Amino acid sequence: MNKRKKKLYCVIMAGGKGTRFWPLSRTSRPKQMLNIIGNQSMLQMTVDRLRKLSFVEDIFIVAGADLKKQIVSNIEGVAPENIIIEPSGKNTAPCIGLAALHLKTVDEDPVMGIFPADHLIIGHRKFSKTVNTALRLANLDGGIVTIGIVPTAPVTGYGYIQYNKERPVKGFDAYCVKTFAEKPTVEVAKRFLKSGDFLWNSGMFVWKASTILEAIREYMHELYESLSHIERTIGKRTYKSTLFREWDLIQPESVDYGVLERTKNIFVVKADFQWSDVGSWNAYYEVSHRNRDGNVIKGDSIIVDGKNNLVHSNGRLTAMIGVDDLVVINTDDATLIVSRDRVEDVKEVVKRLHKSGRTDIL
Amino acid sequence: MNKRKKKLYCVIMAGGKGTRFWPLSRTSRPKQMLNIIGNQSMLQMTVDRLRKLSFVEDIFIVAGADLKKQIVSNIEGVAPENIIIEPSGKNTAPCIGLAALHLKTVDEDPVMGIFPADHLIIGHRKFSKTVNTALRLANLDGGIVTIGIVPTAPVTGYGYIQYNKERPVKGFDAYCVKTFAEKPTVEVAKRFLKSGDFLWNSGMFVWKASTILEAIREYMHELYESLSHIERTIGKRTYKSTLFREWDLIQPESVDYGVLERTKNIFVVKADFQWSDVGSWNAYYEVSHRNRDGNVIKGDSIIVDGKNNLVHSNGRLTAMIGVDDLVVINTDDATLIVSRDRVEDVKEVVKRLHKSGRTDIL
Repeated sequence: MNKRKKKLYCVIMAGGKGTRFWPLSRTSRPKQMLNIIGNQSMLQMTVDRLRKLSFVEDIFIVAGADLKKQIVSNIEGVAPENIIIEPSGKNTAPCIGLAALHLKTVDEDPVMGIFPADHLIIGHRKFSKTVNTALRLANLDGGIVTIGIVPTAPVTGYGYIQYNKERPVKGFDAYCVKTFAEKPTVEVAKRFLKSGDFLWNSGMFVWKASTILEAIREYMHELYESLSHIERTIGKRTYKSTLFREWDLIQPESVDYGVLERTKNIFVVKADFQWSDVGSWNAYYEVSHRNRDGNVIKGDSIIVDGKNNLVHSNGRLTAMIGVDDLVVINTDDATLIVSRDRVEDVKEVVKRLHKSGRTDIL
Repeated sequence: MNKRKKKLYCVIMAGGKGTRFWPLSRTSRPKQMLNIIGNQSMLQMTVDRLRKLSFVEDIFIVAGADLKKQIVSNIEGVAPENIIIEPSGKNTAPCIGLAALHLKTVDEDPVMGIFPADHLIIGHRKFSKTVNTALRLANLDGGIVTIGIVPTAPVTGYGYIQYNKERPVKGFDAYCVKTFAEKPTVEVAKRFLKSGDFLWNSGMFVWKASTILEAIREYMHELYESLSHIERTIGKRTYKSTLFREWDLIQPESVDYGVLERTKNIFVVKADFQWSDVGSWNAYYEVSHRNRDGNVIKGDSIIVDGKNNLVHSNGRLTAMIGVDDLVVINTDDATLIVSRDRVEDVKEVVKRLHKSGRTDIL
């Protein structure tokens, strides 16, 4: 084993489409490329957040081929050769497996941290401490380490991790994982919160590349087969054709379902920085600054007698009178008006537009 | 008196700004120039409606100078020399007085019909019969003739005319007027409807030019003075300067308040064609074709689980999810979203925009 102190290789998963952020997000401009929060794209914010960690060795991004150009020209802090192309979206397990293969070519026994490209994190010191803890833990016995956020509300939109109170990891703010729970109903979420041993599954993970590949070999045999074929061609002329051919055969699967829920000996590091997956317009509303009427306003807008609205107005005036609890997203060619309790249905509209061939606004 | 059968000179009042139809209506494109109903502008529809009346001699339009060019290029059926320029909006009495002066130069003792440029009328045969009745009545003893619509609902947005049931005009479907009532509360409007002797004041009038000028002389002395100065310069080089100078001195006043409410011996012709002053987005909603969800949709729009909305989408897609009873007007540079029970406040937004110097979208 390398004498040098183990460092972290970050893998940012930037393959999402973010259709729930239509009409701001488009096929060619997915959520992670938007600066909906602050003045930078969410991907750039993620890169910057990781760059600031002293123990980070390098940063990689996994994304679709169509995004590579945009990332190279717009994202600072990641070398073009560190962008790993994913032929299509196959959920997180194949994406992470592919990244693991590439990391093995740059270091002997690399530890990788998996970070979604489009999450909001506030509280850098806590974030740094958490990831560092996860890194140290991952180096210990090749553990599989998840990061769980101390929940602040009975949110139904997140998966939860239950940890074993009786099995803390000595010397770490971490526990052995008992179970993973899918998105709960509001009653179940309340119970989770009350119990005190449930954390939000942040989708951030830290492990050795060898550890996760071994787990894939054990629980996702077909994926492992494809990855092995791909691995043999890395750095060779046949890489691209092999990758695309094998990728076509791969079944989409999340790493949570494909690996984590089947494995024993998983750890969770307890984190209490402010975190949101910003998974919908409503989640975006919740994490944004509201004025005294509870309105979140970006761009040119007048609201008369309106409360708790989210308004994005790009390049035009949006005037609202006597309306509450709406999300209004005004772009050059499309305007969305949705009740705040129906934001999950934005995907439905996008599906409908796909069906009717409205690529002009997708 | 001329032996030839008396014909009607129509005067279309096109001086309105229609700010309640913002953002579709703008300073340079007021309501009467919009084709919000059907495929023609409301002014063109008004011209066409009058052109079809066999007893119409000619049609004049009174409008602001800024609109003349647009009217000449866009409106068919009115000679450019028949456009009477109103230096500024001074309500209906000065406008009608000015038109009367001009009509006196083209006929010996003309009968004029006053028609707002932006009302909706459905039922041409009934309309024709009504106006013809009013014309015949106006020729009789120089009467002042109003047109009253049989009300179909206790509308609070209209003025009402109470007629004297005991004093029908023999041989005409008309009555002597008892009183004019301002816009009522909903309770009062219900009482009006129940009483059976109240009609909506349509703002359409028929009288001889000499009759109305004589009434202005009697009840609006200052206006009459100014009109007399203007009259002496018609056809002369000094007309324009005199008009603008006198117009500045004129106090704005409606013909209803300035003349009709002070005069005895007024008639009302009872009309039962479908009529609306289309005075707000909600009035527009009421007269429009609704789909089975009660939505009125013009332009490119998707509504998911939404009822009783009015949507105008010009050149972009408007997508709505889970919202009811909204008016959504989407234009190139401004979007309005207003609860249907708050459409009267659109003027307020326009006022605010004026105050803050937003001429770019006014």
